[in-house]
Amino acid sequence: MDQSQFRAAAHSAIDDIISHFDSMPEKRVLPTVEPGYLRSLVPENPPDEPEEWAAIQKDIDSKIKPGLTHWQSPNFMAYFPAGVTYPSILGEMYSATFNAPAFNWLCSPACTELETIVMDWMAKAFGLPECFLSSSKGGGVIQNSASDAIATVITAARERRARELALADGMEEDTPEYEDRKIEHQGKLVAIASDQTHSSAAKGALIAGTRFRSVQTQLVDNMEMTAPRLRKVLEKCEESGLIPYHLTMTLGTTNSCSMDRYAEILALLSEKPEWQRIWVHVDAAYAGASLITEECSHIAKNFAEGVDSFNMNMHKWLLVNFDASLLFVRNRVDLTNAFDMTPAYLRNAYSDSGALRLEWHEGIYSQDHGPWNIYADLIRGRSDLFEIVTKPAFGLTVFRVKNPQATTNGSHETNGTIALCKRDKESDSLTKKVYELVNSRGEIFITSTVIDGVYVIRVVSTNPMAEEKYVRNAFDIIVRTTEEVLQQET
Amino acid sequence: MDQSQFRAAAHSAIDDIISHFDSMPEKRVLPTVEPGYLRSLVPENPPDEPEEWAAIQKDIDSKIKPGLTHWQSPNFMAYFPAGVTYPSILGEMYSATFNAPAFNWLCSPACTELETIVMDWMAKAFGLPECFLSSSKGGGVIQNSASDAIATVITAARERRARELALADGMEEDTPEYEDRKIEHQGKLVAIASDQTHSSAAKGALIAGTRFRSVQTQLVDNMEMTAPRLRKVLEKCEESGLIPYHLTMTLGTTNSCSMDRYAEILALLSEKPEWQRIWVHVDAAYAGASLITEECSHIAKNFAEGVDSFNMNMHKWLLVNFDASLLFVRNRVDLTNAFDMTPAYLRNAYSDSGALRLEWHEGIYSQDHGPWNIYADLIRGRSDLFEIVTKPAFGLTVFRVKNPQATTNGSHETNGTIALCKRDKESDSLTKKVYELVNSRGEIFITSTVIDGVYVIRVVSTNPMAEEKYVRNAFDIIVRTTEEVLQQET
Repeated sequence: MDQSQFRAAAHSAIDDIISHFDSMPEKRVLPTVEPGYLRSLVPENPPDEPEEWAAIQKDIDSKIKPGLTHWQSPNFMAYFPAGVTYPSILGEMYSATFNAPAFNWLCSPACTELETIVMDWMAKAFGLPECFLSSSKGGGVIQNSASDAIATVITAARERRARELALADGMEEDTPEYEDRKIEHQGKLVAIASDQTHSSAAKGALIAGTRFRSVQTQLVDNMEMTAPRLRKVLEKCEESGLIPYHLTMTLGTTNSCSMDRYAEILALLSEKPEWQRIWVHVDAAYAGASLITEECSHIAKNFAEGVDSFNMNMHKWLLVNFDASLLFVRNRVDLTNAFDMTPAYLRNAYSDSGALRLEWHEGIYSQDHGPWNIYADLIRGRSDLFEIVTKPAFGLTVFRVKNPQATTNGSHETNGTIALCKRDKESDSLTKKVYELVNSRGEIFITSTVIDGVYVIRVVSTNPMAEEKYVRNAFDIIVRTTEEVLQQET
Repeated sequence: MDQSQFRAAAHSAIDDIISHFDSMPEKRVLPTVEPGYLRSLVPENPPDEPEEWAAIQKDIDSKIKPGLTHWQSPNFMAYFPAGVTYPSILGEMYSATFNAPAFNWLCSPACTELETIVMDWMAKAFGLPECFLSSSKGGGVIQNSASDAIATVITAARERRARELALADGMEEDTPEYEDRKIEHQGKLVAIASDQTHSSAAKGALIAGTRFRSVQTQLVDNMEMTAPRLRKVLEKCEESGLIPYHLTMTLGTTNSCSMDRYAEILALLSEKPEWQRIWVHVDAAYAGASLITEECSHIAKNFAEGVDSFNMNMHKWLLVNFDASLLFVRNRVDLTNAFDMTPAYLRNAYSDSGALRLEWHEGIYSQDHGPWNIYADLIRGRSDLFEIVTKPAFGLTVFRVKNPQATTNGSHETNGTIALCKRDKESDSLTKKVYELVNSRGEIFITSTVIDGVYVIRVVSTNPMAEEKYVRNAFDIIVRTTEEVLQQET
């Protein structure tokens, strides 16, 4: 492909990309294809001869687009958003062009330095304390995903703890005795997280080859991890001769966007010298973005001074393309000591910087008084049909369909306190039916989950295309579907 | 940024990208900036207000480009290539646009299916046996890098072996006794690789929290891992009560592109039931691409039937953008059993497919009779100055500067056999001086390493812009510099 062919192809791709986003609101958010649809549409073997771009673009239209789930659609209210914006596409174009595996400074000085600078920018924007800046002992690195960030810190925490235990036994590094002793201690290590933590914490412990224990949460605590519940787990570990070494606290859980009780948990951990050696991580993959707003800036103050690491995803709520998961550590030697060889953490710095300078904060600010809380209010307005289950937070509403036969199990919020939803099989079944019917029709895309034994629907609308009218439309669809399901039941 | 602003910005970016590649051969391959250069050029804090694209593009020109190391330059002969092509940039544009965290089928059917299909295409192109296809029990997944691929299989191998040992002890899964026993076995596991294996094997074992032992290689074996040398390590493990569970064999080592002796190693492993349970992986990150050529297609036959997994990087030699590291496994349940939760392996399928259909095989075919072997021949032609140290392979030449005082230590190749280079401090020092002087001048970029105690220079030229004239020019620079260094010494 020569430069004039590339120019023509790229111009054509750009028109196609613009029309893709332009027609997004009208497109069905979920595709209608069946599993295996693509196999029959493409050749069995790789092409022997190069093909023309025009033929490929035609195939993208006719074979690929019909199989896409539109994460950028304003009707995508499932999981969490995955933002794409025009500036972030420009960033990706440059990132692709300057393609440099920057595994050391010389391999691409601009990549390495830009990443460090932009990470410092973001640490300041999130209100993280000085120690997380590269000018101090800490710093940030870009990871592919929050799961990668969490696996990285859990593994580094294992190395830090097993090493210090072996050294405390008087072992000398790089001896066979040290290796044996370190592995012996490793076998006793336990990573801890609440049962609302994203599965990446349990997976991180699995990758690290260590044990994992979860702290139970409950609706009466709004599914937040509390110090007394954590204490139980810590003490049980100690009774069994096990050594807690890593704790994941969450800012905005996947299920319900709850926040663990940072202050009381950190106070608990300060009680014992061994507990002070636990690596404490804050997973703020989605809701961490909110720390740049004035109204949420106080949150970081509750944990920032007491934790070892913090991660958040630019690619969820801050208009930057996947993948840009930011990981900050208090002591960067904790990472370098653990992994020993220079990690190639340095991708995508261009895309981040490009999008950052254009409009990164608009990702949140534009929605400041927009659809953040509208959906919860709409649900509250139909307390005959729905009950709010956990405290609405960061644009996420978690609710269920009311069991019409139940007595007084309603979502009566008094001064922001939500009446506790009791487990109710009839409500579970109705909620599940509504959820499945809504998604099967594919006009909007929402998620369900189970919280403290209660089956619930999650609706989140914070992607770049989010607008009040789409939230209202989603609400209408859910009301209509709920009435339809209730009708069938009677 | 609205659509007309995006169109204008993207058109301008495309012109800039074309001129970037157009002027590549004239650009200095290494930048002249000093560490920390960027900090003074950009603001200390993130921007408060969005900026115009024109201002950002100006900054890319004046602040970023001067700090780039040009991996795509034909004068980049260091490490291994990192290819970028126009089609792969188009692929990245679509991949960015269709941004979909496809962690399950519904989250983006097209992504999931296209990846599976393209991985089957590539398995066929590499001549991997049937079992590595998705229609069989195996299949491929795209990873970010070879290091990720290797860490993934080592961790999966640890889980497979520790699990089967615990089950063989009569333990029942998901019991406290099973957890204890599995962790106990884990503490005895050893991952093995040769001392020429990329550091990602040792790092993978570190991440997995297991022991690691390396097999020594020697120049007399062309730095290839042999069965007798491996046997020593296996037997020593057993004497110490340790259990080998993973072996990395390499197709094209980083240092010298050597190939381990697959057939004799696999024969060795078949000797004992415990050795048959070792997960055998082939790391073909760079040279795996060669399997698509007729002349190299026989290589896969020597290992393909006997190994558990295989990885290669499309982004090195097959014209696809970073990151597209292909990992194939014989039994996909080995991965799903190990990690338990669906891994989000599914990125970048678009970019791969785009570049694949346009001109992927040209990455190798265009160089078939081109610069692949020219450099080695040039070095042979100056046996007064240089000695070839290991067998030239896959476009990589490994050589050293001759010690003029040495007697008969020359690179006399007879029927393709290279005279063994003995360790020589004077030669080491001369070679190092030449290497450092060449790179400090930045006209070409090459790598050095130490092989069996011998300091050597590595020159590789297989990126998309590689041409004979650049190879000849690099040779001239190295000859000139060597003569200059020798002059100074006398």
